[in-house]
Amino acid sequence: MNRCAIQHIVDSSYCFPVAPNEIVLRLRTEKNDIVRAQVIYENKYVIGESQKKAEMRKAYTGELFDFYEVKLSLEDTRLAYVFYINDGEKNYYFSEDGVTEDYNFTLGFYNFFQYPYINRADIMECVPWMKTAVFYQIFVDRFRMGDREKDTSYINCKWGDIPTPKTFAGGDLKGITEKLDYIKELGCNAIYLTPVFTSISNHKYDISDYYRVDPHFGTNEDLKELVKTAHSKGMRVVLDAVFNHCSERLAQFQDVLKKGKESPYFDWFVIRGDKVSEKRDNYETFAACDYMPKLNTSNEEVQEFLLDIGAYYLTEYDIDGWRLDVSDEISHYFWRKFRERIKNTKKDAVIIGENWHDANSNLRGDQYDSIMNYAFTKLCLDYFAWGNKNAEQAAWKLNELLMRNTDPVNTMMLNLLDSHDTHRFFKEVGGNRFKMKAALALLFLFTGTPCIFYGTEILTEGGYDPDCRRCMDWEKARPDGECNDIYELIGTLSSLRKEQNTAEGAIKIYAESDVLILVNVTEKREIKLLINNTAEKQTVDSETVMPYSFRISLNGGTILYEQM
Amino acid sequence: MNRCAIQHIVDSSYCFPVAPNEIVLRLRTEKNDIVRAQVIYENKYVIGESQKKAEMRKAYTGELFDFYEVKLSLEDTRLAYVFYINDGEKNYYFSEDGVTEDYNFTLGFYNFFQYPYINRADIMECVPWMKTAVFYQIFVDRFRMGDREKDTSYINCKWGDIPTPKTFAGGDLKGITEKLDYIKELGCNAIYLTPVFTSISNHKYDISDYYRVDPHFGTNEDLKELVKTAHSKGMRVVLDAVFNHCSERLAQFQDVLKKGKESPYFDWFVIRGDKVSEKRDNYETFAACDYMPKLNTSNEEVQEFLLDIGAYYLTEYDIDGWRLDVSDEISHYFWRKFRERIKNTKKDAVIIGENWHDANSNLRGDQYDSIMNYAFTKLCLDYFAWGNKNAEQAAWKLNELLMRNTDPVNTMMLNLLDSHDTHRFFKEVGGNRFKMKAALALLFLFTGTPCIFYGTEILTEGGYDPDCRRCMDWEKARPDGECNDIYELIGTLSSLRKEQNTAEGAIKIYAESDVLILVNVTEKREIKLLINNTAEKQTVDSETVMPYSFRISLNGGTILYEQM
Repeated sequence: MNRCAIQHIVDSSYCFPVAPNEIVLRLRTEKNDIVRAQVIYENKYVIGESQKKAEMRKAYTGELFDFYEVKLSLEDTRLAYVFYINDGEKNYYFSEDGVTEDYNFTLGFYNFFQYPYINRADIMECVPWMKTAVFYQIFVDRFRMGDREKDTSYINCKWGDIPTPKTFAGGDLKGITEKLDYIKELGCNAIYLTPVFTSISNHKYDISDYYRVDPHFGTNEDLKELVKTAHSKGMRVVLDAVFNHCSERLAQFQDVLKKGKESPYFDWFVIRGDKVSEKRDNYETFAACDYMPKLNTSNEEVQEFLLDIGAYYLTEYDIDGWRLDVSDEISHYFWRKFRERIKNTKKDAVIIGENWHDANSNLRGDQYDSIMNYAFTKLCLDYFAWGNKNAEQAAWKLNELLMRNTDPVNTMMLNLLDSHDTHRFFKEVGGNRFKMKAALALLFLFTGTPCIFYGTEILTEGGYDPDCRRCMDWEKARPDGECNDIYELIGTLSSLRKEQNTAEGAIKIYAESDVLILVNVTEKREIKLLINNTAEKQTVDSETVMPYSFRISLNGGTILYEQM
Repeated sequence: MNRCAIQHIVDSSYCFPVAPNEIVLRLRTEKNDIVRAQVIYENKYVIGESQKKAEMRKAYTGELFDFYEVKLSLEDTRLAYVFYINDGEKNYYFSEDGVTEDYNFTLGFYNFFQYPYINRADIMECVPWMKTAVFYQIFVDRFRMGDREKDTSYINCKWGDIPTPKTFAGGDLKGITEKLDYIKELGCNAIYLTPVFTSISNHKYDISDYYRVDPHFGTNEDLKELVKTAHSKGMRVVLDAVFNHCSERLAQFQDVLKKGKESPYFDWFVIRGDKVSEKRDNYETFAACDYMPKLNTSNEEVQEFLLDIGAYYLTEYDIDGWRLDVSDEISHYFWRKFRERIKNTKKDAVIIGENWHDANSNLRGDQYDSIMNYAFTKLCLDYFAWGNKNAEQAAWKLNELLMRNTDPVNTMMLNLLDSHDTHRFFKEVGGNRFKMKAALALLFLFTGTPCIFYGTEILTEGGYDPDCRRCMDWEKARPDGECNDIYELIGTLSSLRKEQNTAEGAIKIYAESDVLILVNVTEKREIKLLINNTAEKQTVDSETVMPYSFRISLNGGTILYEQM
């Protein structure tokens, strides 16, 4: 037995409560290294004298490791436990003192694992509506111009021109409101908008007034109307919180530019020296953009300024949550305050960070609910687009991603194939329709909340920013048009998510004969996705899976969707 | 190479900032499995194109693992990194995607490790005075009766009688104030008192009035006087916060007993049903003690009630911190609020949890500073008392304990050999003076803040509670008495800690020839502790270490202390 592989971390994604009397335990071992894992447990005051035992199931398998899991229902939640492992030859105990052949329960109070008490306040709850949410991400300037009365003199291209970094195409909030039915019919019930507040850029990630909708996008009234209309259609609206940095045009930064250290806002930014230098090179910024000064979120006034904004749009505009731009560069301290304020203002508002990497330290229940799951994006690129992974390797990686966080977090992960910050996925798969569709199937059936980037449904092409931010082609955007198969697939997947409650199912992901298999099981039904991303016919359980095909079936029979 | 052993966890005790531009990185490997570890790093916006490289040193070794460490000084703190490992045959990269033979830095933004930005608010600072603190823990009823005017009718034993669970011996706050000079001369400059607030028990862990010093112990004025006098002598005072539960006599619980669900305090406790049952078996308690109802710290009013108490004794009595009773059964949510309130009230107040187990999830900078380090206690028992570990195994365990947490936390760990909740250590080592003294040497030289239980200096005997809580024997308590060697040792160790700034040294712990070796190094000097806990003569570096002996030396020469 590879003792170095055995792992359990208390009070982490290896051990977390999911209800006032329920807790999930996970144990990691080297792959195929043991034959049985059990947990020996009891109330911590009792375990010295008597113990209970529960079987763990091998639930997830990564490249190197198996993960065993068990959900315990407890009467007394003061849980003490040690693992009991059999490697085919011998039994071992695994406690805080490591792997041992014997274990002294009488002295266990020194070294058993424990979850000392399930406190209501520490149970991370899933935002309920996220379980059936399907997101549609909109880059506002490129989606739809709805306000036909507005001053259009700022528009500097024809709708449909390939965008440059400086393109203004005219999309606005009214355009989105106008197209809510379109989005809903497509199968999406939540929209996430890139920033909408005042800014001189087309992307608006450099905000100069957080309390005013950008005039190009419309008015604050238009935002209110958009949210109200969305809600009337059962749809949710999530806005983009750009709190890491602002525009140099923000009044507070302008004041600092004028007065240097004499400005009451000097500490709102991170400036070396007594004033901003002529060369504009002595303060922290987003990336290397001197026109986007970093906000000092360690400063209490800045914190209050941003928290007020966070709460304002919840109370005054009734939005349903925030996506947090460059959230990983902002302190945990701030995000803890933010969560407190947001959840106290609107309990079911969702908080989605933009962390491209493992964000476990932000996802323990005290900061965000979720992140944009770019690690999932990368896996889809490796498997579908770049040929870096076969089905087995893809299955391993998907399992590993699930093991980074707890179940409630996994359920809320914003899974995506692409966004305004990546190449278009359809471009990455070289315009291959099968690969695009198989990836969509995986996106919708993998644990988490799917998010599609506007235009995915019409197979919009595009390389990296600004090319991925092309204007929506409304000519093409028709369920009965040339992309009718994509519309149909998204519709099917979206219905499946809601009608079959896929968020409630236990998931199992593995590979056979280079076919990627994802099974989602509840007590009532089993949904199975088979993907053959190879040029060869494959056989799984005596079923044939044709080259470059996938199918979704129900209860081992009914085909819900098939792509040959 | 055992790939299953390779571990790094971002934003954890494997990766933590220690200054605005400094970060510590750790990497775990199987023991003796690799020959070289480096970290390849850069600002995350640059690493795609160019990278820096830094050597890691093998700093800690446990039973199964080596831990490599490096401290990086950064200009731009937006740190991206991957590890570069050589196993003697091949080079490997280790990133979020695991161990690979190649690594594509251009796509690194998908899978490098990162610490996205060092925010001031996220740097955990060591409470400065903890670096030279030496604690003396006092069980108040048994230490010293100072108030000779008080009503002594509650005292039910002669001073010195072996205590029962119901013994009241008469110790009080005035007695402690009277003996501050004694404690200081012994070498201790901080006291931690078990609870002092109103309660009918001798231990006072069942509090009925948090705002009133127990009349047996004196008055609130006596507490004020104690803290003031201590401060005038350069000593600190830490009190015991019993927030997990209270006495059934607490007014709020009495109200609930009377009115059941009609009481405004009903939700202050965790009660099943509409009222407390006749049998007193339907509410949560400390352990199984129905006279100690658990406080519902998920309730906001309870939170405010307790936070106010926490702040009150800081502002009104100027105490220096809190030890938190049964802290592990209280929510993280509460402790976050508690830290915020405490640190905003008195920045250098210390917060020490009572968690007997790995408490990393409470020690990330948002909750406590430290815990009572019972895992260290257990190691000392295994090594010195129970013969369960030889020197090598002891060294491994000490290293493993250090690897549980970050450096600032390790520096503040309250290390102890025994307490009011264990057997007396001197009893555990069967009255063996060498073992007692060697353990004290280890206690003072191991990373952390040493805490000795009152009476340790006179080799007080005693089994488990209540036996470990015997009356202080003031006849014996003289530096020139029969325990003069213990006084001398504690004095030497205490001076060493202060004069040699041991808290600032890098520590290295290992074993040779069954001798436990602890080296503490700063740029200026090296302190070395050698312990031979065997009946055989041992040789280390051609030095002889006699059976059952230990020595502390300076710079490889000067003997600072020797016990033959």
